[in-house]
Amino acid sequence: MLPYYAEFFGTALLILLGDGVVANVVLNDTNGHDGGWIVITFGWAFAVGIPAYIFGTASGASFNPALTISLAAIGSLSWSVVPGYIVAEMLGGIVGGVLVWLMYYPHWAATDNKVGKLAIFCTAPRIKNTPANFLSEFIGTFVLVFALLGVAQTKSAPGFGPLIAAFVILVIGLSLGGPTGYAINPARDLGPRIAHAILPIAGKGDSNWGYAWIPVVAPICGGLVGALAAVTMFG
Amino acid sequence: MLPYYAEFFGTALLILLGDGVVANVVLNDTNGHDGGWIVITFGWAFAVGIPAYIFGTASGASFNPALTISLAAIGSLSWSVVPGYIVAEMLGGIVGGVLVWLMYYPHWAATDNKVGKLAIFCTAPRIKNTPANFLSEFIGTFVLVFALLGVAQTKSAPGFGPLIAAFVILVIGLSLGGPTGYAINPARDLGPRIAHAILPIAGKGDSNWGYAWIPVVAPICGGLVGALAAVTMFG
Amino acid sequence: MLPYYAEFFGTALLILLGDGVVANVVLNDTNGHDGGWIVITFGWAFAVGIPAYIFGTASGASFNPALTISLAAIGSLSWSVVPGYIVAEMLGGIVGGVLVWLMYYPHWAATDNKVGKLAIFCTAPRIKNTPANFLSEFIGTFVLVFALLGVAQTKSAPGFGPLIAAFVILVIGLSLGGPTGYAINPARDLGPRIAHAILPIAGKGDSNWGYAWIPVVAPICGGLVGALAAVTMFG
Amino acid sequence: MLPYYAEFFGTALLILLGDGVVANVVLNDTNGHDGGWIVITFGWAFAVGIPAYIFGTASGASFNPALTISLAAIGSLSWSVVPGYIVAEMLGGIVGGVLVWLMYYPHWAATDNKVGKLAIFCTAPRIKNTPANFLSEFIGTFVLVFALLGVAQTKSAPGFGPLIAAFVILVIGLSLGGPTGYAINPARDLGPRIAHAILPIAGKGDSNWGYAWIPVVAPICGGLVGALAAVTMFG
Repeated sequence: MLPYYAEFFGTALLILLGDGVVANVVLNDTNGHDGGWIVITFGWAFAVGIPAYIFGTASGASFNPALTISLAAIGSLSWSVVPGYIVAEMLGGIVGGVLVWLMYYPHWAATDNKVGKLAIFCTAPRIKNTPANFLSEFIGTFVLVFALLGVAQTKSAPGFGPLIAAFVILVIGLSLGGPTGYAINPARDLGPRIAHAILPIAGKGDSNWGYAWIPVVAPICGGLVGALAAVTMFG
Repeated sequence: MLPYYAEFFGTALLILLGDGVVANVVLNDTNGHDGGWIVITFGWAFAVGIPAYIFGTASGASFNPALTISLAAIGSLSWSVVPGYIVAEMLGGIVGGVLVWLMYYPHWAATDNKVGKLAIFCTAPRIKNTPANFLSEFIGTFVLVFALLGVAQTKSAPGFGPLIAAFVILVIGLSLGGPTGYAINPARDLGPRIAHAILPIAGKGDSNWGYAWIPVVAPICGGLVGALAAVTMFG
Repeated sequence: MLPYYAEFFGTALLILLGDGVVANVVLNDTNGHDGGWIVITFGWAFAVGIPAYIFGTASGASFNPALTISLAAIGSLSWSVVPGYIVAEMLGGIVGGVLVWLMYYPHWAATDNKVGKLAIFCTAPRIKNTPANFLSEFIGTFVLVFALLGVAQTKSAPGFGPLIAAFVILVIGLSLGGPTGYAINPARDLGPRIAHAILPIAGKGDSNWGYAWIPVVAPICGGLVGALAAVTMFG
Repeated sequence: MLPYYAEFFGTALLILLGDGVVANVVLNDTNGHDGGWIVITFGWAFAVGIPAYIFGTASGASFNPALTISLAAIGSLSWSVVPGYIVAEMLGGIVGGVLVWLMYYPHWAATDNKVGKLAIFCTAPRIKNTPANFLSEFIGTFVLVFALLGVAQTKSAPGFGPLIAAFVILVIGLSLGGPTGYAINPARDLGPRIAHAILPIAGKGDSNWGYAWIPVVAPICGGLVGALAAVTMFG
């Protein structure tokens, strides 16, 4: 399979599963309604981990422009594939958002909460503070890229890598997801935000475009610094 | 062991454990009463994963007519065994339902909730909407079969496969279980529904036969499409 | 190390960790107070799994007279070591109960709940019904022994076995722990019950000796049948 | 990489993630607010486990003066590196505390709870009782060091060790974290306590120095005894 397809399908599956767990917790009349942060964070952990298993050999399972750019910056991925990867990831993010809307179709009209509906598709800061929100996303993505590269340089049994990656996502969510909802991935945030903007979601509010640049720019910056730190430490 | 026995015993154990966790959360005066969605989803994850370990070598551990048919459709299982597998899975589902009834025997009379009692045995939509409910089960089973086949084509250490399968079930429950309760398996839904219908459960209501076809037909359709997608991508 | 010591120390550690999580959830003024069934069941899962790692090579990590007897009955353990194993497991259970009492020392006086204090040491049925309670413990231990033997006959990477065992305990707790609190082990129930009876626990009630035979006899019966079923199926 | 750097960076990451999960649960207006003990304990488990993967080959991933001293006492680590390790771990603990403060910057002013803010950085007993609190930390660290050494002497697949270590931390938190919050590590407690004392945290209270010696001395004592027990048993 062409790696671009892998990035597209993997990101779409990631967003269906990741945004899906938020939908389950936020929307009314679902089985997971009000399921708590442990439900959200385990959902996202394996929303990343399972596609990483499936598409790892085809494309490296980046699913994240911040990670894609960081890998290219340290020479682990050719710059020539970066534009195609990013386009595939963004399209996957949009399609994943559409799938979540379909999956939970009757629940949008049953839910009044406009802020919650947007939170299913993309992140928002709990306390608005531009430099602090930027820093939170920067640190979160630094840890993501640094940890993935730091783990990758160790020896592990076949099939182990994506499981550890899932636990990396788990702990980032549990520990660093408090202030901004751990976007740590431009495609995970901007892609579904576009889906939110264009879909005829029952009772939706605005798509909060004023915040949209932070979960794009901060993860790229944090990821680059994390990748450079990992390369400096582990060669 | 004959694979048909493996499918029968494995599905019975799966349903005992899977329906068991719902009984623990729903019935009155249990230790797990009101334990939340994280309890339900981890319970189902290993309700599938543990029998998959035990019976994997004997029969492939399908336990699911939608998966069985999908595997046959892509040539991974001989059509000649499919009828036997499905009969074994359905009988296992019924026996598993009986075992749950016995396991929680004194709790049925202590619980008034008729809808909850049925929910222990089989799924129901939280918002009734036939096309949407069908689509939810279709997507859930697509992800199930696509992910299991997608993971199976990668290399992993011995003993790893059923663990990953458990996490596939976990994330489907967390992320896609909200609208219809993720039947994603005709034997898991129809088998225990039959048990509910025939058992002398204290204070039971009707078995909601009007909905019963959706968790049979939608998973078979979704599984077939998921299997074709996986074969197209991974050969 | 002599296997008897391994059984003793392993069971003591198992009970410290297993009863410890119940103490954390039940006693007043603890960090885990009211932490829910997911806390209890994950605690017990690794209360068994971690000692199973540590002592597995020394003694097989039975820690459970029902399992010990079942293994002997199917020829996997010599009958000559069974009495020593059982004595070591029972003593370990008592010592584990003493350690929990010390670990949570100031919290006993801060807690009024007599039933809850006993529940830290040993199980009780949520609805008293002798045949039903017996059957619940029978089924739970059947699943335990059948699953452990069923998993053991499959090939898995080194270090994997105790992790799967932990998930077997997890799912038994989540799914089958509702009616009687899943003793599924005479040493886990009777050992700490003796500790409860002899220790000067602040504000303790009686030790509910009338129920004490069920979590001894039913697990032995269920384990034996589970072992015979596993041997019949897997040879 | 020099092992001192590994201990420094690993401990800083450990504290960022470990203290981070407490901040997420305790501070106001976070996504994980009031997430419960299961969130705290899974957060700490992988706050330790992920750095253990990353830095295991560089330094052994001790991150804990009690473990460092215990390893030296049994001859598994040269005494000559112990002072450097401890300095690196303490500095890492301080830096980790600073990072948590930055990560959750706008949330400190939004939270009144002075005791809760301190609990993000360091532990406190739920019921003050010096000998009992000492004993709780002693037992917790005994289990930590004994279990890590006990597991290390068994054979496991590459990449498995840190995962088991994470589950050791998980069960210690679930089962033994109730009375004192399981410091079980002088650098984890004293390092961030120093950060709490020197940082200009909005609305902070005092740093509870009267208790600070217990989570330093008790873990060292408990760790030493645990290491000696493990060496006696496993050679």
